[in-house]
Amino acid sequence: MAPHASDAVEQTDLTSSAMEHRIAETNGHTAAKGELDASKLTIQLADPTAREVPTPENANAGDETICTDHMITCQWKLSSGWSAPELKPYGPLSLMPTASVLHYATECFEGLKAYRGFDGKLRLFRPNLNAKRMLMSTLRISLPAFDPVELEKLILTLVATDGDKWLPASRPGSFLYIRPAMIGTQSQLGVQAPKEALLFITASYMPKLDAYPGGLKLHTNPEDMVRAWVGGFGYAKVGANYGPSLLATNEARERGYGQILWLYGPEGYCTEAGASNFFVVWRAKDTGKLQLITAPLDDRLILDGVTRRSIVELAQERLAGEVEVVERKYTIAELLEANKEGRIVEAFAAGTAYFICPVSLVHHRGEDIQIPLGKSESGQYTTKIKSWMADIMYGNEQHPWGVVASKD
Amino acid sequence: MAPHASDAVEQTDLTSSAMEHRIAETNGHTAAKGELDASKLTIQLADPTAREVPTPENANAGDETICTDHMITCQWKLSSGWSAPELKPYGPLSLMPTASVLHYATECFEGLKAYRGFDGKLRLFRPNLNAKRMLMSTLRISLPAFDPVELEKLILTLVATDGDKWLPASRPGSFLYIRPAMIGTQSQLGVQAPKEALLFITASYMPKLDAYPGGLKLHTNPEDMVRAWVGGFGYAKVGANYGPSLLATNEARERGYGQILWLYGPEGYCTEAGASNFFVVWRAKDTGKLQLITAPLDDRLILDGVTRRSIVELAQERLAGEVEVVERKYTIAELLEANKEGRIVEAFAAGTAYFICPVSLVHHRGEDIQIPLGKSESGQYTTKIKSWMADIMYGNEQHPWGVVASKD
Repeated sequence: MAPHASDAVEQTDLTSSAMEHRIAETNGHTAAKGELDASKLTIQLADPTAREVPTPENANAGDETICTDHMITCQWKLSSGWSAPELKPYGPLSLMPTASVLHYATECFEGLKAYRGFDGKLRLFRPNLNAKRMLMSTLRISLPAFDPVELEKLILTLVATDGDKWLPASRPGSFLYIRPAMIGTQSQLGVQAPKEALLFITASYMPKLDAYPGGLKLHTNPEDMVRAWVGGFGYAKVGANYGPSLLATNEARERGYGQILWLYGPEGYCTEAGASNFFVVWRAKDTGKLQLITAPLDDRLILDGVTRRSIVELAQERLAGEVEVVERKYTIAELLEANKEGRIVEAFAAGTAYFICPVSLVHHRGEDIQIPLGKSESGQYTTKIKSWMADIMYGNEQHPWGVVASKD
Repeated sequence: MAPHASDAVEQTDLTSSAMEHRIAETNGHTAAKGELDASKLTIQLADPTAREVPTPENANAGDETICTDHMITCQWKLSSGWSAPELKPYGPLSLMPTASVLHYATECFEGLKAYRGFDGKLRLFRPNLNAKRMLMSTLRISLPAFDPVELEKLILTLVATDGDKWLPASRPGSFLYIRPAMIGTQSQLGVQAPKEALLFITASYMPKLDAYPGGLKLHTNPEDMVRAWVGGFGYAKVGANYGPSLLATNEARERGYGQILWLYGPEGYCTEAGASNFFVVWRAKDTGKLQLITAPLDDRLILDGVTRRSIVELAQERLAGEVEVVERKYTIAELLEANKEGRIVEAFAAGTAYFICPVSLVHHRGEDIQIPLGKSESGQYTTKIKSWMADIMYGNEQHPWGVVASKD
């Protein structure tokens, strides 16, 4: 006899009911438990003279990420919920060797940028989307739920606190990289959802990655190495999607390629380029019309990228009648065929870290797909889309996606 | 033009050459780089009176794992290789918020036990297999290579150091849980193989999990949640296999089941029970003869469990002519059919943590497979195999698999 009454329906809703249970369990289903609340932030400021702002040349020269003066941390316990968030000097975390995150990858993160506009203002780009995706990732990896609006407020507070010093108005057109992360901290071995967790947010420098000299070169994944699977967690920004991909990526780099183009299944569907979404501009086989094509979200194999989504929306709006935006499964065989028929126009990788990075080559089992780069090493549509995005990020265009973080 | 000369062969060997490159890169390909060397161990002993040994009742009562007085740590850097390992008082690790392991799941571990024999001796069970598997896992997750023999020596040293106090001779038949782990510690954001890593080994208490009251009840995974996939990393003991499985496991537990039985593919192949291997004793459909069946290793979906391997070897040797040992793919449909035809004799989960744990029920989409438990809640073959294993672990049988760790 089954422990609970059961029927065929029960099985299929196990995942969605698991999500509901995680939310109820971790967030405010009893009045006694604390919810994540940005208004409770405590502030302990660092000595502003203790650390110097690096020059743009030195900001990414070493093997260590340079973070700003402060970080925000917030502890969660199953018994008491979220404690008051703390803004405090950037520094090391102390974890017991038995901490969940060090063994079971109970971890997820987000990545977004703070942009110093040409109008002097500090902006974030659609931070509400990152905050919402972070919640989805935490639930998928059995970390505690929270109100995404509160996370967004904390991010804005950190940027407003450190932005003026670390991203000075004298450096318009540059950015800081914001990394919210959550980890399971319970000091107990055993495969189980952690009863303690830590949310932390840092701001740091990151190199510009959007213009590989000669274009980004992609190598398709080896047949015996797959990034994600239907029913897996490819759509979530969890650590488990990244570590296992490093082996193939490193090997591709030793051969002179920048990233892996991850194919899926025996059909060889094109999914992601490294940890970025992948776009191709081509002429459709049947009509000869221009299309901007990218993999769809519905099978949950790929990340619902903020950059991806924004490109799709901008292209639908601003290229209407000229380039059709297509979100569908497409295969490496289709790419090879289009290449032979001279139908490939442009290709690029898109994500927060790489922004919009022109792709010049895809190598697949001995065959090369050469992709025109155009003048300035970026095709005309790639260039257009990139400049639309940059104009919103850096305040050349006033747009609801650009959220001002500074007080002035 | 491709960055390197390429042909169709190149693609297929990307994984194996990546493994070779990891080994060369991290371990002794230049004389200047340190290799992992147990003979260089430095020792800083804890105050032996500072912490008390818990009673068996209290050892696992809290939400925190109780570790012994000491741990062993060893740092690795790409530039200099392995430093001298350190045996020192158990305590927290300090990691920067940008440490690789906290974002990208660059982590792997092993689990083995130290057994206090009925003859008073301390033993490990086939620790060489754990050390070798740890190397395979580190390579898969882009952490540095090492000589497994040195890891085994370090494990033995920790057990010999803390065994007499924390697993006293007055408690024969009990064990400590040994957890070697490796994490990427480089403080740099960005998806890349870490240039710094930390190996650490702890010894701790863990509850006995091998006899669920009423037997272990399994719930098959929801259709939209998969543990591992061909071309993934299901065979490696990396954190990325565990965190993502917690959501379904927790939900199954809320419904009264102990673990998920992970099925694979549209065929529904039976793979693992939770984080343990899964065995069934049944009568073959065609011949009616007794078989001990478990999933095979060749598609690299499941962990090459030390307990699994030992059970297969012991059963082949000691049940020859009575029970045939079969390692092949088998489906949940075959189990359901065998159940309807009354051919299922016993089933159990097997792993280091769960040891050999009788299974009494498998629930699959509204259908229950009831499995006889027999007297003492353990079928006759389960009981036999378990006692053979325990006799080796606890020194009732002198066997090469039992490696003595204590000095006496």
